[in-house]
Amino acid sequence: MTTSFEHSRQPVGPDRLRSLLTPRSIAIVGASEKSAWSRYTVGNLRSGGFSGRLYLVNRSGAVTHGSQTYPSLLDVPNPPDLAYLLTSSGSVLDVLSDAAKVGVPNLVVLAAGYAEAGQAGMSMQEDLVAAARANGQLVLGPNNLGFINSHAGLAAFSFETPLPLLAGGVGIVSQSGALAIYLVPYMNSRDIGTSHVITLGNEAMIGAVDAMEFLLEDSHTTVIGLYVEQIRDPAGFVAVARRAREVGKPVVMYKVGRGESGARVAAAHTGALVGDDRVIDAICRQHGVIRVESVEDLVTTAGLLESYGELPGERVGVVLGSGAMCALVGERADAVSLSLPQPSVETATALAADGLPDFATVQNPLDVTGYVTVDPTIMAKAERRMIEDPNVDILVINTVLPRSESEGLTASLRAQVTVDLSAESSKPVIHMGFLPSETTPFVRQWRRAAGLPLLVESFDRGIPALAKAIWWAKRRRALDGLPAVDGLVAVAKPEGADGWSEAEAGAFLRELGLPYLPATLVTSPDRAADAAAMSGFPVVLKVASADIAHKTEVGGVRLGLDSAHAVRAAFTEIQDTVRAARPEARIAGVTVSPMRTGGLELLVGIVRDADWGLVLAVGFGGVLVEIHRDTAVRVLPVELREIREMLGELRGAELLRGFRGGAPADVDEVVDVIHRVSRIAEALGDDLEALEINPLLVDGSRIEALDVLIRWRTPPLDVDRNGL
Amino acid sequence: MTTSFEHSRQPVGPDRLRSLLTPRSIAIVGASEKSAWSRYTVGNLRSGGFSGRLYLVNRSGAVTHGSQTYPSLLDVPNPPDLAYLLTSSGSVLDVLSDAAKVGVPNLVVLAAGYAEAGQAGMSMQEDLVAAARANGQLVLGPNNLGFINSHAGLAAFSFETPLPLLAGGVGIVSQSGALAIYLVPYMNSRDIGTSHVITLGNEAMIGAVDAMEFLLEDSHTTVIGLYVEQIRDPAGFVAVARRAREVGKPVVMYKVGRGESGARVAAAHTGALVGDDRVIDAICRQHGVIRVESVEDLVTTAGLLESYGELPGERVGVVLGSGAMCALVGERADAVSLSLPQPSVETATALAADGLPDFATVQNPLDVTGYVTVDPTIMAKAERRMIEDPNVDILVINTVLPRSESEGLTASLRAQVTVDLSAESSKPVIHMGFLPSETTPFVRQWRRAAGLPLLVESFDRGIPALAKAIWWAKRRRALDGLPAVDGLVAVAKPEGADGWSEAEAGAFLRELGLPYLPATLVTSPDRAADAAAMSGFPVVLKVASADIAHKTEVGGVRLGLDSAHAVRAAFTEIQDTVRAARPEARIAGVTVSPMRTGGLELLVGIVRDADWGLVLAVGFGGVLVEIHRDTAVRVLPVELREIREMLGELRGAELLRGFRGGAPADVDEVVDVIHRVSRIAEALGDDLEALEINPLLVDGSRIEALDVLIRWRTPPLDVDRNGL
Repeated sequence: MTTSFEHSRQPVGPDRLRSLLTPRSIAIVGASEKSAWSRYTVGNLRSGGFSGRLYLVNRSGAVTHGSQTYPSLLDVPNPPDLAYLLTSSGSVLDVLSDAAKVGVPNLVVLAAGYAEAGQAGMSMQEDLVAAARANGQLVLGPNNLGFINSHAGLAAFSFETPLPLLAGGVGIVSQSGALAIYLVPYMNSRDIGTSHVITLGNEAMIGAVDAMEFLLEDSHTTVIGLYVEQIRDPAGFVAVARRAREVGKPVVMYKVGRGESGARVAAAHTGALVGDDRVIDAICRQHGVIRVESVEDLVTTAGLLESYGELPGERVGVVLGSGAMCALVGERADAVSLSLPQPSVETATALAADGLPDFATVQNPLDVTGYVTVDPTIMAKAERRMIEDPNVDILVINTVLPRSESEGLTASLRAQVTVDLSAESSKPVIHMGFLPSETTPFVRQWRRAAGLPLLVESFDRGIPALAKAIWWAKRRRALDGLPAVDGLVAVAKPEGADGWSEAEAGAFLRELGLPYLPATLVTSPDRAADAAAMSGFPVVLKVASADIAHKTEVGGVRLGLDSAHAVRAAFTEIQDTVRAARPEARIAGVTVSPMRTGGLELLVGIVRDADWGLVLAVGFGGVLVEIHRDTAVRVLPVELREIREMLGELRGAELLRGFRGGAPADVDEVVDVIHRVSRIAEALGDDLEALEINPLLVDGSRIEALDVLIRWRTPPLDVDRNGL
Repeated sequence: MTTSFEHSRQPVGPDRLRSLLTPRSIAIVGASEKSAWSRYTVGNLRSGGFSGRLYLVNRSGAVTHGSQTYPSLLDVPNPPDLAYLLTSSGSVLDVLSDAAKVGVPNLVVLAAGYAEAGQAGMSMQEDLVAAARANGQLVLGPNNLGFINSHAGLAAFSFETPLPLLAGGVGIVSQSGALAIYLVPYMNSRDIGTSHVITLGNEAMIGAVDAMEFLLEDSHTTVIGLYVEQIRDPAGFVAVARRAREVGKPVVMYKVGRGESGARVAAAHTGALVGDDRVIDAICRQHGVIRVESVEDLVTTAGLLESYGELPGERVGVVLGSGAMCALVGERADAVSLSLPQPSVETATALAADGLPDFATVQNPLDVTGYVTVDPTIMAKAERRMIEDPNVDILVINTVLPRSESEGLTASLRAQVTVDLSAESSKPVIHMGFLPSETTPFVRQWRRAAGLPLLVESFDRGIPALAKAIWWAKRRRALDGLPAVDGLVAVAKPEGADGWSEAEAGAFLRELGLPYLPATLVTSPDRAADAAAMSGFPVVLKVASADIAHKTEVGGVRLGLDSAHAVRAAFTEIQDTVRAARPEARIAGVTVSPMRTGGLELLVGIVRDADWGLVLAVGFGGVLVEIHRDTAVRVLPVELREIREMLGELRGAELLRGFRGGAPADVDEVVDVIHRVSRIAEALGDDLEALEINPLLVDGSRIEALDVLIRWRTPPLDVDRNGL
């Protein structure tokens, strides 16, 4: 649901948000023995390591959680930096007012019953924001569970959380408070530390984009982990994603809600092909945001990136100690298109010299086999050979962390080998477990002492996480080199364009330099026959009417007419059947065009997404696109090379290389034409709702639009979009 | 690799395998302080709870692992039931001979270097089997890591394993020993107990099918978990899968190695469409085997089935305490097509009466919202309403297990509520965690005391596991009602069929009652024109030659000929171009057939799989099948309803319901024709290699084969298949 309210939010700015997240003193308003929230919050602050002053406010002034309370904020001796409100929504405005009186700039509001609870709540939320703005206050929430600033030992969080806090580089932003309840212990159990955990709730004043902007500036944060159900500020999201890519902090996003939007332009096919979710996939791809499909994958991927940083290449070598593990890792790598190159001949020779038995085939993943029980040094030797292989950029090994002191000694020796290996080779060595297991405090301590990076918990999650980390680094390199799309000359929407038939829309595109099927508009059978003779037989006749989007369905198209006689007859038939089918339609005449046969048909559609703007979809036309939804999607603007990439993503891509004896398509030319379509759409700007070329004929180097549907926006601008 | 050796294995029989797995006395041959295997094996047997006699055999007779050893099996005072050989392959035959002398019937052989290590090893393995057979001995392995009989406290397993053994109902069969090293502790950490863990290694005498047959008879085993890289006995596998379904013990299989077989009939498209792996998918679907894609999913699914048994329906109600959890579970359920029905109006009314606030929308998953902190009883009330809903067969709730004694008290109260709920309603209540966590000994004990079933560890793995468990129960009900395919009359391969052109193959199918495009074979332009006049214009001319599989590619097909003149010209052109392209081809003439236009084109292909026999693939013809590989696959024989199910699996299924104004297909008739094709293929039996109808035209109720390719087997029978 996009509401005017959501679009009225103002950027918070990283410094202001930092002041909220790093208070030196906090007042808990609504502290009460009876409230579980209160017990958790006070307990977390006291035990987590918060070194500032903590004031408890309770209307009764009674001793609570062992401390004297103050009846109101007005009674607190020194105005706190932050007021943390556990009170119900009914008293929040009063507390805001008290806070303003004593000069409390920042607040956290947990209360529910606001925008998430319907129209009355929405209105209450507007009042909350208006009051805070008037007071110059900043509010986190409402309907959230607080925040954690791990490096400051500050757990202003209203549920049980593992203490001491595990400080690290992953900054978590979650629209859901409940998710954070589970996420933080889970990350802890995987030995992955956080910099901040910010639960946003309803995002009344502080949105995901604000939190991300803050984390981009935050020196402790190296990776951003994001849980969202709705992206409320699309333009801000694109900007912050771009900035994250520029500064080299990966964003890993788990977004639920893969629903389709029903509010699209139903007349164009493109609308149905471009679901909300595919647009978000496109945005992620275009801006280098890593999208994952579960909390577990969010944590594994963020942890891998935090520990191993930006990976230097994409060719992965794997050395393991059992055939089953190799089979399993190989299969998983295949499934996520991870590149496992064949080791070089030199590596094979060296391995043989190292004593690897003949029955161990030198491949990737490399199985050192049960021979490792005969010669335990073979594993380290094989790892060294693999990482020295010029075909390999990254090494993956299976590491088992010790569970006890005694195991720790043996493990330390082995760990030293890989630490040395990693230091000598400058190529990263990624440690991966076979199956998930939790880290104990002993293991955590041991790992840090041994100087080992994170043990990525399992192959099943680790291999896809590695593929995503490699994708991110690759994407970052590719996008950094991408020139900005060059200057664009705006094209005004012509007078009367709302009443265009396809013939007029086609003429318009032709004028703008797009290759479009020639067509002559005629209004009598004889003129039709003349035009056909001029164009050369066979020809196609199509009804010209602004009121008829699907000409075939009303009998408005006749194909393969190969004589003047046939053309005349077809003209009359079209006139009769269309009039019978659609008596109200205004008919401008009939167009005569040369008949094209053979070749491939593409659909090139552009449709406006309410959140993200103009979206381009490209796919193979006809049954392929309608049944198999085989399309690639991007948000405009797009560069030539991105269009080439889109064609490569289509499952039917091989059709372009020539199929069953057909000529290969001139892909450069196809890319160029699609790019021109996208530039025309952009040049039309705010006026355009949809522009769909279906089909775009591709026959070797002949690329030609055969039909088009253009929809304009009515009303031209959505008032809500201009803000309140 | 299918070898004659693998086909020479003989069924072991459950009783004989039981005797191997339940020894009262064991001799460890090759016990040695220096061997890690030896330390682990002896340690596991001593600490695991094995109550029988343990003898250590070491050539030196020195004290080992604190016990006196015997220099050879011949010196052991009482002949043990089982000899467990840690010796290298070189001395295995000698030990077998000693064992035979003192009457040891069963052996485990760990040594590697057998069939997995190439030709010499294969030959050594044949010697091993021959010797064992001659002695009447049974060998588990070689190249394995032993076995675990959990209910007997017997861990005859040569790697570290968590003790005490966690006894339960999951019987594990693994071709890989290394996998079991990781699998058992992982299952333990998930509180899922095993009945037996049998590592097979090279399956020289005891194969996966033998182990499964034993587990089907074993009273402790309720679910079979299977890890395989290769199914060595396809017919046995089908039989044991069917039997498992009949007795109601689900088989959950993780098979790696999704490679494609290159040895298929390259001339037919069907071969490329039916990879090895798709055939195994088809076998699983046909026989109710649950296939999973990771060890984690194997464990989660087997654990769920072990604890909750055969589920009574497929409509799942979910009650949770946060919106994020609901979004996440809803999305996961969608992804695996789990049915989450809308709660009834009565449920909504009852929930309102229970006090659920207005802002909590009554849907499924049902979010009781943060209101649960105001009224903690609302969760139990909502669960009760959901399970009483007539639209719901199964309830899923989120359970958090206690980590300590103090948490245990609160949790016990809550647990009692769900235990009562489950007992009262008779519908299963499935407990699921949000994110994975390990169970501690305290939790294990607590759960059993509370009478709670398994906590399925996470939504991300649990929801798909639930979908698979539901699928299994549904499949079992469906397959149990399936009549056996009725009597089949064999059809002999006609004389000269190897030299058939399409015209002859088509005539053959027409005789067998299949609707096949009429065709007249002619040998002159004039005869072609006559035949065309008889059939009615327009017609199609096709070259008739047994040597030309792809007629179009050599200019051997002319379509849409609408006059005698055009037919005569086309005849001559075909003759000329085909002769030019394929001068060596024998040309029988040209066929004249009526031209068909419109309708849908299906591909109906049958191809022989070396392991599984005749395989049927059905898909939409042309680009759809070749680019999108949109096919459904089954192993013959198939029932009518399975063919209907295949059509439903196609992504293009909606085409059959009428696409863009086309007439809907007569699906009954399509199913019937495909069934007839399958029966003809079966009737042809061993002679047939491939039979591909492409296309099968479907135009409303007209179903007609337009082209066929038949390949026969040469040489007719593979000698190896007859056994040694």
